[in-house]
Amino acid sequence: MCGGCNGGAEANGSATNGTNGSVQHPVQNRSASSPYQSVGDYLSNVGKFKIIESTLREGEQFANAFFDTETKVKIAKALDSFGVDFIELTSPVASEQSFKDCKTICGLGLKAKILTHVRCNMEDAKAAVATGVDGVDLVIGTSSFLREFSHGKSMAYIQKTAIEVIEYLKGEGVQVRFSSEDSFRSDLVDLLSLYKAVDTAGVQRVGIADTVFNSGGATPRMVYDLVRTLRGVVHCDIETHFHDDTGCAVANAHAALEAGATHIDTSVLGIGERNGITPLGAFMARMVVTSPDYVKSKYNLKELKALETLVADAVQINIPFNNPVTGFCAFTHKAGIHAKAILNNPSTYEIINPEDFGLNRYVSISSRITGWNAVKSRVDQLGLKMSDEQVKEVTAKIKQLADIRPLAIDDTDSILRSFHAEQVEGSGTY
Amino acid sequence: MCGGCNGGAEANGSATNGTNGSVQHPVQNRSASSPYQSVGDYLSNVGKFKIIESTLREGEQFANAFFDTETKVKIAKALDSFGVDFIELTSPVASEQSFKDCKTICGLGLKAKILTHVRCNMEDAKAAVATGVDGVDLVIGTSSFLREFSHGKSMAYIQKTAIEVIEYLKGEGVQVRFSSEDSFRSDLVDLLSLYKAVDTAGVQRVGIADTVFNSGGATPRMVYDLVRTLRGVVHCDIETHFHDDTGCAVANAHAALEAGATHIDTSVLGIGERNGITPLGAFMARMVVTSPDYVKSKYNLKELKALETLVADAVQINIPFNNPVTGFCAFTHKAGIHAKAILNNPSTYEIINPEDFGLNRYVSISSRITGWNAVKSRVDQLGLKMSDEQVKEVTAKIKQLADIRPLAIDDTDSILRSFHAEQVEGSGTY
Repeated sequence: MCGGCNGGAEANGSATNGTNGSVQHPVQNRSASSPYQSVGDYLSNVGKFKIIESTLREGEQFANAFFDTETKVKIAKALDSFGVDFIELTSPVASEQSFKDCKTICGLGLKAKILTHVRCNMEDAKAAVATGVDGVDLVIGTSSFLREFSHGKSMAYIQKTAIEVIEYLKGEGVQVRFSSEDSFRSDLVDLLSLYKAVDTAGVQRVGIADTVFNSGGATPRMVYDLVRTLRGVVHCDIETHFHDDTGCAVANAHAALEAGATHIDTSVLGIGERNGITPLGAFMARMVVTSPDYVKSKYNLKELKALETLVADAVQINIPFNNPVTGFCAFTHKAGIHAKAILNNPSTYEIINPEDFGLNRYVSISSRITGWNAVKSRVDQLGLKMSDEQVKEVTAKIKQLADIRPLAIDDTDSILRSFHAEQVEGSGTY
Repeated sequence: MCGGCNGGAEANGSATNGTNGSVQHPVQNRSASSPYQSVGDYLSNVGKFKIIESTLREGEQFANAFFDTETKVKIAKALDSFGVDFIELTSPVASEQSFKDCKTICGLGLKAKILTHVRCNMEDAKAAVATGVDGVDLVIGTSSFLREFSHGKSMAYIQKTAIEVIEYLKGEGVQVRFSSEDSFRSDLVDLLSLYKAVDTAGVQRVGIADTVFNSGGATPRMVYDLVRTLRGVVHCDIETHFHDDTGCAVANAHAALEAGATHIDTSVLGIGERNGITPLGAFMARMVVTSPDYVKSKYNLKELKALETLVADAVQINIPFNNPVTGFCAFTHKAGIHAKAILNNPSTYEIINPEDFGLNRYVSISSRITGWNAVKSRVDQLGLKMSDEQVKEVTAKIKQLADIRPLAIDDTDSILRSFHAEQVEGSGTY
């Protein structure tokens, strides 16, 4: 057996399997003597992923966020009830109150594991342990940009520090994640070497983040390629963290899972630095389509709206009109051609069933682009009896009025009722 | 030369090249005798795409939308000034006013080509031509769902009707796009056969849409695969239309371009049925990262904010807090570790330069997660002189106060000024 680069991977494999008790992936079971990792290590996790919910860490970096202890506790309990796997908290060294809040939340006895996110140095690591968290998320900037402009430390120094901190944390019996902050601009060889080393040292997870993206921007294809490569190099779990500057954070999370990532960072409504990260709700919308059974059995989707409302109120924002699932129009249908089909079979125009989230669909008929099938459905709802010809006639009337001014649902109902009354009187059937 | 399926593609190639003057793609130049299309037809259009802006069609299907003529004209002019290639309007058969508005906008003399979107039948096509549009976007539902529940017509009938309508429109000298409404749930062979037939008939574009997605939901990977397949089958341009129910509409548009699509449908703020389609602004954010030169030279990015405000006001919505580029916090930096790096080199934490959009970055220092580098920058902005030690001291003070209550920027400035005044008095240097 040669002592080249593959030797490291083998040592790595046994060290990891022996010490940290992480989930056994197919990658860990491949023959240690095979130099080819490209088939055996393939693993899509779209049907089996974990959520690291970072509203109380990344979310605290949102411009509007100020969470007092009471609010933090409320949010933590709501996240736990929703069913997230991990709750990540602001570093205890950020401020005195941050330290106290970490301790408080660790003491709540939640089902979710509590993590805190600290810089990769011994002082921060010790403060984290002192709060009683289940796991520590170490982060360090590794890209040439960050090396030059932020902490100016060499890769060798980064690696040495990282191993020391990891050894300390392992000794304290807490889970460890090691993450580079700017994975997509880091030198690939540097990044893989570092991750291989920390994997060998026994971390539970490595994390990659596109806090900035690389100079071309991280697209799902780029995410897939990097995660797929990393999946062939480390044996531990892979956590991913995507910012939404270019609107790809949900798709990037999905691509990461396709490539074998195991954990996705989210925050409620995506709140975080700048315009935030993968939103929990939009991610649920994506994944309930990809893996309905897993998502519906594991997460309490009906609590999503209340959870989002809680956080939106806490940071004084409105839920975006176009928010997946809970945006006010997410299940509103308007065009006649759409409404006709959806009234026959909702799945024609809905990939998500609003009832899974405890919500309802709404077919709007108060516009010039409505159609007679939609109007007929409303006529039936109102208990009015009309022939198809009559419905077509009143539809033309609605479209004519809606051409002139916006109609509210009440307006349209009045039109239907008065038309019906006229018809009934006219026909003398009463 | 055999008369099999490849014969059709060859005839198709010459018909298309000869008659409709569409852009010459590599796909059209490959050897007609090669049975393999998989190399020569590869074409990524991420650096050369066109926008079909559908705020005045898809956007009119948004729950809140009621556009009177004046508003439509304002929006059309603003879109034209922004630089979109095509403006798509609601079908003239939707209502009498819709017909008049089509004529009005066609008469404005805009640089953008004017399209209208109608059902694939002769009556609608004639109404479209009568408005004076440059092109007609034909749409028909083809998936088994839509066939069963919406119009109930067979594929053969669909194809026959389509060809008749296309021939009519060609005779009238207008551009034609043919689109299936629910491409991702249609039978692949049905869809490709139909598209090959309309390509041979000489349409300028075929369109695919995930109005509903297929039962698994359209992800970027699925989009890439379908567009890539279609690229090998038709010679004409390919337009794509993505809904945002699962938050993937921007990434799907990008994946479509990577696979060889040529045109992307957008609407301002994504307004449309349910929670809408690929938003123009988020798509610009994505593409200015992927293809900065093309995007910056072609579109007037500095007009984005005004354009979004115009449409938001017209449909009475707020611009989402997390909207790419124009969300209120898109360029706000808060955490100390971020702020330190960004003050040294903005591209460390910004993939998009706010100045390209006529906007500014903002480093927030009014929180407990701020850091002394960020505070130092504000001290300098305020023209106060402090040593690094003094800045660290006042930073601790800010963090302590921010632990207790939310701080506004004014609060922080006051703290800095009064601390400075104390120091100056204390040191007696004044």
